[in-house]
Amino acid sequence: MTKITAHDLAKKQKEISVAEFFERNKHILGFGNQTRALITSVKEGVDNSLDACEEANILPDVYVEIKNHEDGECKVIVEDNGPGVVKKQIPHIFGRLLYGSRFHAIRQSRGQQGIGISAVVLYGQLTTGKHTKITSKIEENTPAVVTELAIDTNKNRAEVIGTGTAHWDKTCGTRVEISIMADYKRGKRFVYDYLQSTSIVNPHAQIIYKEPDGIEHFFERTSEVLPKKSVEIKPHPYGVELGTLIKMAKHTKARQLNSFLKTEFSSMGDRTTNSAIEKAGLEKTTNPKSMIREEFLSLHKAFKKVKIMAPSTDCLSPIGETLIKRSLKHETKEISPEFIITTSRPPSVFSGQPFQIEVGLVYGGNLPKEETVKILRFANRVPLLYQQGGCVTTQAISSIDWRRYGLNQPSGKGIPSGPAILLVHVSSTLIPFTSESKEAIADVPEIENEIKLAFRGCARKVQHHIHKEVKRAKTREKFDLITKILPEIAKKSAHMLDKPVPVLDPIITKIMDVVWIEDIVEYVKVDREPIQTTLTGGTPEEQREGTITKSRIMVVNYKRNPQKFNLYAIIPEEAVVGEVSPNPSKITSNYIKWNLDTIHPANKIDVNFELAGLEKGDFDENDLYIENINPAYVIGADKWEGD
Amino acid sequence: MTKITAHDLAKKQKEISVAEFFERNKHILGFGNQTRALITSVKEGVDNSLDACEEANILPDVYVEIKNHEDGECKVIVEDNGPGVVKKQIPHIFGRLLYGSRFHAIRQSRGQQGIGISAVVLYGQLTTGKHTKITSKIEENTPAVVTELAIDTNKNRAEVIGTGTAHWDKTCGTRVEISIMADYKRGKRFVYDYLQSTSIVNPHAQIIYKEPDGIEHFFERTSEVLPKKSVEIKPHPYGVELGTLIKMAKHTKARQLNSFLKTEFSSMGDRTTNSAIEKAGLEKTTNPKSMIREEFLSLHKAFKKVKIMAPSTDCLSPIGETLIKRSLKHETKEISPEFIITTSRPPSVFSGQPFQIEVGLVYGGNLPKEETVKILRFANRVPLLYQQGGCVTTQAISSIDWRRYGLNQPSGKGIPSGPAILLVHVSSTLIPFTSESKEAIADVPEIENEIKLAFRGCARKVQHHIHKEVKRAKTREKFDLITKILPEIAKKSAHMLDKPVPVLDPIITKIMDVVWIEDIVEYVKVDREPIQTTLTGGTPEEQREGTITKSRIMVVNYKRNPQKFNLYAIIPEEAVVGEVSPNPSKITSNYIKWNLDTIHPANKIDVNFELAGLEKGDFDENDLYIENINPAYVIGADKWEGD
Repeated sequence: MTKITAHDLAKKQKEISVAEFFERNKHILGFGNQTRALITSVKEGVDNSLDACEEANILPDVYVEIKNHEDGECKVIVEDNGPGVVKKQIPHIFGRLLYGSRFHAIRQSRGQQGIGISAVVLYGQLTTGKHTKITSKIEENTPAVVTELAIDTNKNRAEVIGTGTAHWDKTCGTRVEISIMADYKRGKRFVYDYLQSTSIVNPHAQIIYKEPDGIEHFFERTSEVLPKKSVEIKPHPYGVELGTLIKMAKHTKARQLNSFLKTEFSSMGDRTTNSAIEKAGLEKTTNPKSMIREEFLSLHKAFKKVKIMAPSTDCLSPIGETLIKRSLKHETKEISPEFIITTSRPPSVFSGQPFQIEVGLVYGGNLPKEETVKILRFANRVPLLYQQGGCVTTQAISSIDWRRYGLNQPSGKGIPSGPAILLVHVSSTLIPFTSESKEAIADVPEIENEIKLAFRGCARKVQHHIHKEVKRAKTREKFDLITKILPEIAKKSAHMLDKPVPVLDPIITKIMDVVWIEDIVEYVKVDREPIQTTLTGGTPEEQREGTITKSRIMVVNYKRNPQKFNLYAIIPEEAVVGEVSPNPSKITSNYIKWNLDTIHPANKIDVNFELAGLEKGDFDENDLYIENINPAYVIGADKWEGD
Repeated sequence: MTKITAHDLAKKQKEISVAEFFERNKHILGFGNQTRALITSVKEGVDNSLDACEEANILPDVYVEIKNHEDGECKVIVEDNGPGVVKKQIPHIFGRLLYGSRFHAIRQSRGQQGIGISAVVLYGQLTTGKHTKITSKIEENTPAVVTELAIDTNKNRAEVIGTGTAHWDKTCGTRVEISIMADYKRGKRFVYDYLQSTSIVNPHAQIIYKEPDGIEHFFERTSEVLPKKSVEIKPHPYGVELGTLIKMAKHTKARQLNSFLKTEFSSMGDRTTNSAIEKAGLEKTTNPKSMIREEFLSLHKAFKKVKIMAPSTDCLSPIGETLIKRSLKHETKEISPEFIITTSRPPSVFSGQPFQIEVGLVYGGNLPKEETVKILRFANRVPLLYQQGGCVTTQAISSIDWRRYGLNQPSGKGIPSGPAILLVHVSSTLIPFTSESKEAIADVPEIENEIKLAFRGCARKVQHHIHKEVKRAKTREKFDLITKILPEIAKKSAHMLDKPVPVLDPIITKIMDVVWIEDIVEYVKVDREPIQTTLTGGTPEEQREGTITKSRIMVVNYKRNPQKFNLYAIIPEEAVVGEVSPNPSKITSNYIKWNLDTIHPANKIDVNFELAGLEKGDFDENDLYIENINPAYVIGADKWEGD
C-alpha cells in the first residue's frame, strides 16, 4: 500500500464558501425535493415581507403569485407594501448568505439567520440557471430600483447582472421574482394551507395568492391593529453560556463589573446585580476585561443562585388565545366544536433567550376517531409544515400519557389517536430550529418541558370541563325533572284532593338547593357601530362592519336563603366591551366584575354584556367565577382565585 | 406610529460570521442538549480519526477517554494512530468552520462538511471557556507538535494560544482534548452504544474506550483488511443541477464540448457523449464557455434521454451482508435468531451523487412482540443515533404496509410493531443530512424509493423463507412419521405374521418421492491454520487464531429413479474457502458448484466444505440451489437462476 503522509493530505485542505456549502447541501435549507422547494420559496418571501412591514409599522399587504411553466419550472413572485430596500443593500440581502439585520438583535422575528431569501435565489439559479429580479421602492417620489442578480457561490457575493429604474404605483415596497424548479402539482395544496394558516395567526395581514391558472385567493385582513411590536432586549442571564459571558466581557464598553451586568443584560437591576456579584465573591468595581476564567465561572454559577426576574414579554409577540381558537376551529370547520381549550405558559428562558409556549386543544365534533391526532405547529407566527417527526413539539406530545385524557395511545407513548387536534405555538427571540430550513424545533429541554406543562394544564382543563359538564348535566336533569314533573304532580294531587295547587317555588328551592347560573351567547351583525367603552387600551377604533357578541347570564337563587355575591366573566384581551347591565363594579382587559344585588330565594338576576372586535364564534361560551359564596352551592361557575 | 424607513433598516444590516452563526445555533450542530453534546463530540472525533487512518491506509487504533469533573464539565479525549496533521494546518482544521479536504471530493467519507471537529472546539469554549489542545505527530523521527487554540467567532479564525513540542511514543497520530459541558450520566449509555455499533460495521478498527471511573472497554479488531478504499470520481450526469452544469462549463479547462463532458463527468465515454450532444442538437466542437443558457438547457434535458451507465461503485464503500447480519445478531444477542435477511440494492444516483442502499431484517427469537420495531440506521459506516423521527429511513419504513409481512401496523402506516429489528445503511459520496449535525437523512425521493424497494425485496425473501420453512416442516413431519412408524409397523407385522421384516427403503422412497437436502453448520476454533485455497482474490493471509465454519450437506434420493444434477452453495464474499469434498466443479467469490455424481434411489451423497475469515455465527445456514432437475422434486434447495 502506498504510504500517504500528512503532507499529502494537507494539500487537499481548503476553505469552503458558505454559499458553496449550501449549494451542495440544498436539502439543509429546505429544498431537498421539488415539492418542499416550492413551499420553502414562498415561505421565505412571505416571512421577509411580514417582518419588513411590521418593523416599519406598516399593515402588510402581501401578494404571492406562482406561474407554472412547462417542464416543472415555476416563477415565484412575492410583492409587499413594506419599506423597500435601499439600493446598496439589495446585492447583500439577496445575494449573500449569512447577511442580515435580525441575527444580532434579541427580539422575536420570523427571519433570524440572514439566510432565507438568498437561499431561494441560490436554489433558483442552481436549478434553472436564471437570475433573480428585485424591484424596490423606498420613497413616494422616487422611481423604483430594478436589480437583476445571481450569487457567485465561490465567493458568497452577489453578481449584479443589471440595474435600472421603473415607475411603480406603490408608495414603497419590494417585489421579488425567482424562477425555480418545483413540483407545482404536488406543492399547490401545501402553499395554500401555508398561506391560510399564516393568515389566521396574522390577522393584521392581507394576503392575495394568484395561482398559475389565474384564480386568486383573497385572505383578508381581520384586524387593523398591528401586533404589539417585539422590543429588542439584552441577553437574559439565565442559561447564558460561560463562553458568551467571557466574550461579552471582552467586548464591553463598561469599565466596572456592576455596570457591565446592568447594561449588557436584561432583568439586572441594582439589587440582583449586587447580589450576584456578592455570591460570586467578586468586587463591584472590578474591570470586566481584567477578569480571569475562574472569576467568570463563579459569576456564571452565581446567576443560578440569585432570583432574577423572568424576562419581560416585550421582546416576544405571542399569538394569543383568540387566534389559537380561531386556528383550531378553522381546522374542524365548526363554529362550536365540543370544546376548545387553550393554555398560555408564562415566559421562560433557554440559553439567555426568552421564549413562551401557547397551546390549544380541540376535541370532539366531526373529527375522525380512529386516526392519529393532527398537530399544528407554529414558531414566531409562522406555520411549520414539515419534519413533524423531528420536532420537539412532537416529542413532547409523544411523551405525555394521553390515555387519562380520553385519547388512545398504546403503552402511553407516541402520537395519540382520537378526535382531537393539538396546536403548539413557540415564540422566542431565537427559535432553536434543527436546521437552517426552519421546519422543526430542536429538542432543547426547557422548551420540551414547557410544552409538556402547557398540555398537561390544558388536559386538566379538559378533565375539569368534562367534570363541570357532567355535574351541570346531572343537575339539569334533576332540574328538568323537578320543573316538569313536580307541577304535574301538584296539579293532579290538588285536583284529586280537591285542594288548591300549592305554590311550588319554595319546594323546588328546597330540593335544588343551588344557585343556578347559565349563559347564552349570540352574534349580531352590525355596520359601523361606534364603540362606547374602550377600556382595553389603544385608541378607540371605529368598528368596521362586523359582529357584536352578546352574552346573557341568568343567575337564579334556588336556595332557602338570600344570596349576595360577586360574579366575574372572563373576556378575551383583544375584545372591546360594549353595553353592560347591570353596571359592573370593575372592567379589566381580562374580566368584567359585578357586585350583584342580593337575590332572594326563587328569584333571579339577568346579567348582560356586549363585546366587539371579535369574529363570530371566537367567543362562544362564558367562563364564569363567583366570590363571597360557597362554591359548592353554585352550578355553572367556579371559585374566583384572584386576578 | 413613527415612520421607519428603508434607510433606518439598512443601518442594522451586517455580515454574520459562520462561526458566530453556529455559536448562536449550536443545536443545529447537534449540541442542543447536554446529553447529545457528549455523543456528538465523541462522534466527530472518532469519525475524523477513522477517515484520516483510512485515507492514509493505516489500520485504525482509536482511543477514546472521557473524564468527568464536578459540575457537569467533561473532558473528551480522542487519540488515533493516523497520519497526523501538519503544523500549519492545525489552526485551520480545528479552528475554522467550513474548512476541510472532504467537501470538494466526490467520494464516500464520514466527514463531508469541513465543520465536525471545529464545532466541538466551538462548543467546548462556549460552555467551559477552555481552550482545545491538539497533539500531532506526522513522522517517526520528529517530535509531536502541541497546539492550544480557541476560535475567534467574529472572524471564524483560530486563535492560537500557544504551541510547543513533546515527545510521543507513536510513529504518527493525532490527539485531541476538549473540555465540554455534558451530561455524562445520561449520555454514557449512548456513547457506549455508538462505539459498539461503530466497531461492528468497521471491523478493521480497534477502539478502546476509557470511562471516567477508569473502566476500559476494548472493541477489538476482527479484520486485518482495510475496507476497499472509496475512489474519488467526477459528478455523474444524472440529477446534476442545471446551475451546476453552467458553473462547471464556466470553469472548465476543456475547450470543446465533447472533451468537457468526457473529462468533467463520470460514466461519459465517446458513445454516450456523442449521443447526448446529438440529442441536444449541439456541436461536439462547441466551446463550453461560449454556450448560452438555452443550449445548457437542451444538454441538461439530453442527459435524461441518453442511457448512461450507472456510476461505478468504486466511489462507495458499502458495509456488506456479513457485517449487517453481525450488527443485527448483536442486537438480538442470539447466535441464530429465527431468521435474518439482508438485501443490497444496486447503486443509484441523486443530484449527480452516487449512493447505495443496504438493508437487513431480523425476526423472531427473544425480540419483544408488543413494541414498535427497533430501527438501526447507518450512513457511510457511521451509526445515526438521533432524530429518528426526522429521518428518511423512518419515513420509508413507515410508508410500507408491513401487515402482509407478519408485523402489526394500524391502518398500514407508521412504524410497525412486532418481534423484528430493521437496519438501513446508506452509502453515498454526499449523504444529504437534514442538518450539519449529521443525525438524520433528508427526504430525497431517490433515496426514499431505494429504501422502500430494498425492504420490499427483503420482505419477499421473508415470505419466501417462511414458505420454504413451512414446506420443509411438513415434509419433515411426513418423513419422521414414515421413518419412525413404518419400521415399527413392519416389525410388528412381520412378527405377527411370522415373516421376515421387509426392506423398507424402496417403500419409503415411493411414499416420499423427493430429493431431500439438509445441512448442518458447525464451528471449530483453530490456531493459525494456513489456508489451502484462496480463490476469492487477494494475497493469502495467514489465518489468525480464529474460527473455521464447516458445512455438511446431506443429499438423499428418495425418488424411484436415479438423479444426476448440479448443486450450488452460496458463500459470503469475504469468506476464504478451505477444504471441499467432493471436488467442486467451480468456485467463485459468491458460490461453490458441484456436478454431483448420479445418486441411485435410497442412496445419498455427503457434501462438505470449510470457510475461514468469518466469525462464529456469521454463516449459520446454507442457501442451496439445484440445476438440471425439476425443482418440484427437491426439498431444501431452490432452482438456480444463474449468477
